[in-house]
Amino acid sequence: MEAEIITIGNELLIGQTIDTNSAWLGNELGLIGITLIRKTSIADKESAIIDAIKEAHSRVKLVIITGGLGPTKDDITKKALCRYYDCDYRIDESVIKHLEKIFSSRSRELLESNLSQSNLPSISETLLNEVGTAPGMWFHKNDHCLISLPGVPTEVYHITKERVIPKLLQTFKLPIVLHRTLVTLQKAESLLSAELEEFENELPPSISLSYLPSYNMVKLRLTQKVDKKEAVSIDLYYKKLVTTIYDDVFCLGDKDPASHLAQYFIKNTIRFTSAESCTGGLIAQRLMQEPGISSVYPGSVVVYSDETKIHELGIPASIIETQGAVSESCARAMAESVREKFNADISIASTGIAGPSGGSLRKPIGLVFIAISKKNTTVCESFKMFGTRTQIIQRATNASFWMLKKLLAIPID
Amino acid sequence: MEAEIITIGNELLIGQTIDTNSAWLGNELGLIGITLIRKTSIADKESAIIDAIKEAHSRVKLVIITGGLGPTKDDITKKALCRYYDCDYRIDESVIKHLEKIFSSRSRELLESNLSQSNLPSISETLLNEVGTAPGMWFHKNDHCLISLPGVPTEVYHITKERVIPKLLQTFKLPIVLHRTLVTLQKAESLLSAELEEFENELPPSISLSYLPSYNMVKLRLTQKVDKKEAVSIDLYYKKLVTTIYDDVFCLGDKDPASHLAQYFIKNTIRFTSAESCTGGLIAQRLMQEPGISSVYPGSVVVYSDETKIHELGIPASIIETQGAVSESCARAMAESVREKFNADISIASTGIAGPSGGSLRKPIGLVFIAISKKNTTVCESFKMFGTRTQIIQRATNASFWMLKKLLAIPID
Repeated sequence: MEAEIITIGNELLIGQTIDTNSAWLGNELGLIGITLIRKTSIADKESAIIDAIKEAHSRVKLVIITGGLGPTKDDITKKALCRYYDCDYRIDESVIKHLEKIFSSRSRELLESNLSQSNLPSISETLLNEVGTAPGMWFHKNDHCLISLPGVPTEVYHITKERVIPKLLQTFKLPIVLHRTLVTLQKAESLLSAELEEFENELPPSISLSYLPSYNMVKLRLTQKVDKKEAVSIDLYYKKLVTTIYDDVFCLGDKDPASHLAQYFIKNTIRFTSAESCTGGLIAQRLMQEPGISSVYPGSVVVYSDETKIHELGIPASIIETQGAVSESCARAMAESVREKFNADISIASTGIAGPSGGSLRKPIGLVFIAISKKNTTVCESFKMFGTRTQIIQRATNASFWMLKKLLAIPID
Repeated sequence: MEAEIITIGNELLIGQTIDTNSAWLGNELGLIGITLIRKTSIADKESAIIDAIKEAHSRVKLVIITGGLGPTKDDITKKALCRYYDCDYRIDESVIKHLEKIFSSRSRELLESNLSQSNLPSISETLLNEVGTAPGMWFHKNDHCLISLPGVPTEVYHITKERVIPKLLQTFKLPIVLHRTLVTLQKAESLLSAELEEFENELPPSISLSYLPSYNMVKLRLTQKVDKKEAVSIDLYYKKLVTTIYDDVFCLGDKDPASHLAQYFIKNTIRFTSAESCTGGLIAQRLMQEPGISSVYPGSVVVYSDETKIHELGIPASIIETQGAVSESCARAMAESVREKFNADISIASTGIAGPSGGSLRKPIGLVFIAISKKNTTVCESFKMFGTRTQIIQRATNASFWMLKKLLAIPID
């Protein structure tokens, strides 16, 4: 089964709002075996809305539209839907009751404009929205189905999970779609692809492989649509994929590498800390996004200036004078010192030249030293990162995650 | 002049990637007077690409497509373009030279798959991509123009700024579009909008006001399309806008608030530091993105655990025992201590409950104390932030920037 999404709103076209709803919906639909074949964004304009729906329904039976359901003048989706279905409005008492409840709980007056949200196209079924004021709507006519949702992401998530997915499963006979993802963290997409050429050539037509690169991370995803008759073979190919590039795999599943590391630290009560120069705190920032991290993360330092490296971490001034702050000796000393300072089991240190200025022939922009220290062992690697200041910082952070994985032999699952 | 964008990639439809390119492009096109009327996302499928281009060109003369230019099998945009334009490939020597340069600087082997990126549809003009390996392409046929760009955001930004915008300005007669932007950092969009109702009603038809909200930041943008005959009045209205909400303005121009602050610190040699608990280093992280910041940023600490607050910053254990780490006294002590520790002129401290767990009736999730300390003065404010862990961290960071502006009376321009 195929579907299309139409997102409505001028703010999407002038670059004011980044559309996150449709990516989320695409994933949710995929999980129940509905393939999204197209997403279209258009302005709050009646003719544009009607045209887009007609076009989408000429290709697919299921169309989901988001946005344009607010109480203000520029929201005209309902009007366009009445026109498209050639129907009038009905008043939904359940929506009025919900609005009264919501407004009294917020101690706000229920205005005429708010009440208008209970006027719905007469042929629609209401998809009640407990977390907002604009209900969703379900239209089913001539074997074609259209779902209209508000534009606010939390409301889209709520109505979809609670109303849309169950109703879709009930209404349509859907296939099973399987995904298997893994994360690599150092090798370029083109090199991985060269290594996987044979593997890709041997994939059956029902299984496809996608590459999703971001900085020096590449996610690899296998997708298979399964008929009931067909033997489920995706796990065999997934195993083969993992084996083929085993040394490059950071973790299995569709995971943020920082989250994989943080969960390992939490589970094994490994206290970590960092002393960051060129990455400016990003290594710690990314790890501390994980809920529950406070049990193993006492804190960390950003030591940006030479004086701070000396005073906060006791880096010998002689190292900085003879070899510079951007050096292997300095990175090693930073990692060892910060580990002791915070009484941590493992520490990460970064020092480098993120640019856009400050590079030299011997120490060019993008030169980064990363050291990881644990009891009795400190390792250090140097990298030549390329790209902008932001890219160098991101790539150095990913490189430190890869080094952590290697040094601690962190399992990929 | 109107345009459409087509973004190509299975990852956009299955929800693995959120499309940020098209929002950015929509904004850039708007700045030179090109109105985006539709965005379409489709899969890496030849027929889908060709159909989408045909449909878009039936509505508009200018079509921009992104994605599908990588060296791997699933990238088939060029093949589809050759089919659409009924042309063959040419080899672009300038691209080969660029690829050789990039791969040798990265000490990586240039594979056959990488070299394939110099094969371009014969009727295309090359839009050289200095920051990546896939060049952009410009097609101009029968008064219709199509631009094909890679999918990697930094590459889209680079090629668009350096090649596409200049070429569009040269090729088409575009109106003059003027923009005036300012940044607010604390008041909700709905409240600003209520205060600006009269101002908005008095705007001439040629000038429009847009609200661009993100966490507790709202950017306000005036836009005017100017004929040569028309007197340019946007600056008068911009002045009036600034006056009307003067107390809420953080800075003038389309600027990142962190960059505005960092530039002020650099210009006035104000050394800053931070002691962050719930924001986990994000305050320092955002400020240190500014090139040249090293002259005024010695470093900072993340003090996540109680013990670190006590050991690293000397926060009296009695404060943590009696009032808790999430308290005004603790925030104030953190700010004062870290300022002395790093011999800084100004310091920022954050302590709060970012969630998703750890809240209580007296100290709910979202409760955040932020303290700013300078010589002889420490101020502290408490906030009740809404949203997810990430949203609370982002909002607390923006709140600290607003407090810095107020305490230091930082000019808005």
